[in-house]
Amino acid sequence: MAAAAVEVTWDVEYILWAPDCQQRVMIGINGRFPGPNITARAGDVISVTMNNKMHTEGVVIHWHGIRQFGTPWADGTASISQCAVNPGETFIYKFVADKPGTYFYHGHFGMQRAAGLYGSLIVLDSPEQPEPFRHQYDDGGELPMMLLSDWWHQNVYAQAAGLDGKDRHFEWIGEPQTILINGRGQFECTQGPTRKSFEKLLNENVETCVDDQKMCSDQEKCLRRSECGPYCPRSQCAPVVFNVEQGKTYRLRIASTTSLSLLNVKIQGHKMTVVEADGNHVEPFVVDDIDIYSGESYSVLLKADQKPASYWISVGVRGRHPKTVPALAILSYGNGNAAAPPLQLPAGEPPVTPAWNDTQRSKAFTYSIRARKDTNQPPPAAADRQIFLLNTQNLMDGRYRWSINNVSLTLPATPYLGAFHHGLQDSAFDASGELPAAFPGDYDVMRPPANNATTASDRVFRLRHGGVVDVVLQNANMLREEVSETHPWHLHGHDFWVLGYGDGRYDPAAHAAGLNAADPPLRNTAVVFPHG
Amino acid sequence: MAAAAVEVTWDVEYILWAPDCQQRVMIGINGRFPGPNITARAGDVISVTMNNKMHTEGVVIHWHGIRQFGTPWADGTASISQCAVNPGETFIYKFVADKPGTYFYHGHFGMQRAAGLYGSLIVLDSPEQPEPFRHQYDDGGELPMMLLSDWWHQNVYAQAAGLDGKDRHFEWIGEPQTILINGRGQFECTQGPTRKSFEKLLNENVETCVDDQKMCSDQEKCLRRSECGPYCPRSQCAPVVFNVEQGKTYRLRIASTTSLSLLNVKIQGHKMTVVEADGNHVEPFVVDDIDIYSGESYSVLLKADQKPASYWISVGVRGRHPKTVPALAILSYGNGNAAAPPLQLPAGEPPVTPAWNDTQRSKAFTYSIRARKDTNQPPPAAADRQIFLLNTQNLMDGRYRWSINNVSLTLPATPYLGAFHHGLQDSAFDASGELPAAFPGDYDVMRPPANNATTASDRVFRLRHGGVVDVVLQNANMLREEVSETHPWHLHGHDFWVLGYGDGRYDPAAHAAGLNAADPPLRNTAVVFPHG
Repeated sequence: MAAAAVEVTWDVEYILWAPDCQQRVMIGINGRFPGPNITARAGDVISVTMNNKMHTEGVVIHWHGIRQFGTPWADGTASISQCAVNPGETFIYKFVADKPGTYFYHGHFGMQRAAGLYGSLIVLDSPEQPEPFRHQYDDGGELPMMLLSDWWHQNVYAQAAGLDGKDRHFEWIGEPQTILINGRGQFECTQGPTRKSFEKLLNENVETCVDDQKMCSDQEKCLRRSECGPYCPRSQCAPVVFNVEQGKTYRLRIASTTSLSLLNVKIQGHKMTVVEADGNHVEPFVVDDIDIYSGESYSVLLKADQKPASYWISVGVRGRHPKTVPALAILSYGNGNAAAPPLQLPAGEPPVTPAWNDTQRSKAFTYSIRARKDTNQPPPAAADRQIFLLNTQNLMDGRYRWSINNVSLTLPATPYLGAFHHGLQDSAFDASGELPAAFPGDYDVMRPPANNATTASDRVFRLRHGGVVDVVLQNANMLREEVSETHPWHLHGHDFWVLGYGDGRYDPAAHAAGLNAADPPLRNTAVVFPHG
Repeated sequence: MAAAAVEVTWDVEYILWAPDCQQRVMIGINGRFPGPNITARAGDVISVTMNNKMHTEGVVIHWHGIRQFGTPWADGTASISQCAVNPGETFIYKFVADKPGTYFYHGHFGMQRAAGLYGSLIVLDSPEQPEPFRHQYDDGGELPMMLLSDWWHQNVYAQAAGLDGKDRHFEWIGEPQTILINGRGQFECTQGPTRKSFEKLLNENVETCVDDQKMCSDQEKCLRRSECGPYCPRSQCAPVVFNVEQGKTYRLRIASTTSLSLLNVKIQGHKMTVVEADGNHVEPFVVDDIDIYSGESYSVLLKADQKPASYWISVGVRGRHPKTVPALAILSYGNGNAAAPPLQLPAGEPPVTPAWNDTQRSKAFTYSIRARKDTNQPPPAAADRQIFLLNTQNLMDGRYRWSINNVSLTLPATPYLGAFHHGLQDSAFDASGELPAAFPGDYDVMRPPANNATTASDRVFRLRHGGVVDVVLQNANMLREEVSETHPWHLHGHDFWVLGYGDGRYDPAAHAAGLNAADPPLRNTAVVFPHG
């Protein structure tokens, strides 16, 4: 099959939007949030002409999971692969959708992703790159992708000011107000007596919707006035409904672009079979619910094998004591009903996702992911070099800074890629040495960091092209005693094999033999558990 | 006297601040709002090293009223004199404080001024450039400058999204929540029963302030929790107090950097003598209150000739039906009191500023401004060319656009100044012709604009260096019937003579003879009245 061209033009601009029925300013694309879905076939060339219509902010867009073979300048990371595109300017991203899978895109400059600049990117399989599980779901069984995110009512500029605050000026952003499913949530309208509002939202008819102020002939105006009560139109914060026919098997793609939240997706009365992770095949396994960390993506197979009705989909927070209520969506068997609306709320309560602090359960899920047997490409037997990356929370000049081996990244004004291309690497950033590739042998990962002499640097690691590198991601205790959090790590431009997980400090002598060299999964995002 | 150097270094960054006792994100300088005062002497070289510490926004700073003789690149206007300074970059503004007067500085990119990026700039007189009214106020009689602004609780990104919205997505920002005096206001705490909160704020002791949550040992945390009630500390939203001694005469500088509001300043029991406007001498005249439009500055002489007590200063809105309550400050005679605090509220009610719609009164004030007789520099007898600028509100592609002679400005990505300097003027902007220098002879300024075929352009006028230009600023009716608003106009890089004002369409045959060629005031900002 000849590669096709997928060409779109985007205006990135501020929009007033009510993702959870509360209006805020967001960064939208072509006047909408989330940004437009992109669907391509493996091998297609995707071309996005991006016009920056914001007044003062630069912008870039990262194509999360796309390896950018041959087009590293299209990776969309400010200070790494390009300068931010200034207001009024246009930039064309052009790259190959190199392999089938579930991806997404998002702003990669400041906190623009958290401001709403993201959307889904689906790469369908092709005759040259078939997906081995394609025959396991029905034709037309591709459900809309489920893109998950977390949302704060406070704008990202205020969030940044608080997080960057020195000493007592530091302000933690707190837990998100709402978990969004495909950019939609229902703040304070899913629990207890307000559940009725959820039902109303579900069935609201745009044409007849009338709020207390009788303003609903103008759809937009009506929405802007709404609190948890009558809403119109349903477009911005209506619950997401996945429609299925009884007896068919579906493929549901799930991805997470949260800022903070670790999530779990559970569908009332249905099991899921995991078949894809981050654009790579995994050995199918059946789960009742699925954990998903920011940056990850999965495909699951879902059999509509229950009686024709509506079923709850719950998306709950894990890993942090949740102050955010689970997001809800509906799985609806439409085939048994004469007319689709009105949609009834499912019977019973939404399923309860696993306890937020049941880390063993999370580990069990993640550890069970293996490369698919019939397409497994095991890693090389030996690595050229080993890099240890200790991840700690530190204080630097009165400000909280995360650091790796006690070095906190400062982004250079000249992008690394441009610096190398133009021979500026001696002036554009600190090229006097590499970053430390290890951390002190006596570092106690179970205790708060004592080494608070964190330095800031824009040094890099230099790897041999085609080389094989072992990377040990070492989690540690935070500044507060006996607290360590789960951290997903994402790599641009490459997939990597996840050879193993463990608790406490990694000890090559004790742990290396237990690594999985046979069928480790390929991923672009890996999760490191507390103190792990 | 030899010129000195005034050198400062500024970090421009987001801050969480409570200018009217409600915390929001603002753009601050060196962690504070408003930005630091700059005081220089005429002839001094001011050098500001500006570090852009914002994460995604570019920034420039305009030195409002400074003519930038020999340093046009330091004017600080994005797309005009320079590119915006990108995040992480540094720009050094260096220019001569060319003449004594009352100035201020502000961001000139997007809506950053409205986000709080401004501060005062005072140029003191020198032996070479004496101010003729210097002997009329006492030594030490320079009061802190009064810099006025208006403030919205909605952030500027949301404001921009609403104002730029197409068709029904347009959202008007509404009237400001608070008028700020030197960056301080007291939202909902100056009227009626809440006046007590104002008094409490006035006298609050930082060390002992305790709010309901007992958090005030940490000053900042306390403030962040506050509503109209107990506040701590007093630093961010405490009322401004001007301290005077009975019998002395003072110089009070007043400037306005509002986005929308036309203001009037009135001091209980005191008259003011106007002596300076926009850094130019005016023939002294005595007023009960003073109108001030955005971009204007004045110096008034104030004699502390009342009994030792406290007096209200009211700053009220004019020109638009005010939904914003007047701002209040205190003039305090401290010399008669043994110990300064606690400060009593002044006796009686704050003075009431003139009715918002008493346009005749506004005209009377503005028309009475004349160049000071003993330093008058009248304009040349004849002009080389005449330009008529019709100012209308239009719709363009469903969006509200203000335009001049039916052309709405689009800013070019390459700054005009750089384009000319580098010989790029044929590619950087539309150099195929000039902007229209007149408007149709039958245009009815009393009616809504019919010519809605507004075009967008980045064309410029090209004037002869050293030439003399007559500019007629013609106000008109807005899109709504029988509405025309007052508009201040500001010119960069030059002062101009204000030859006259009038009502309705300017007719050279009828009106030219009535212009004031003898003692017109020099200004950098001129106000055009409704339909005027």
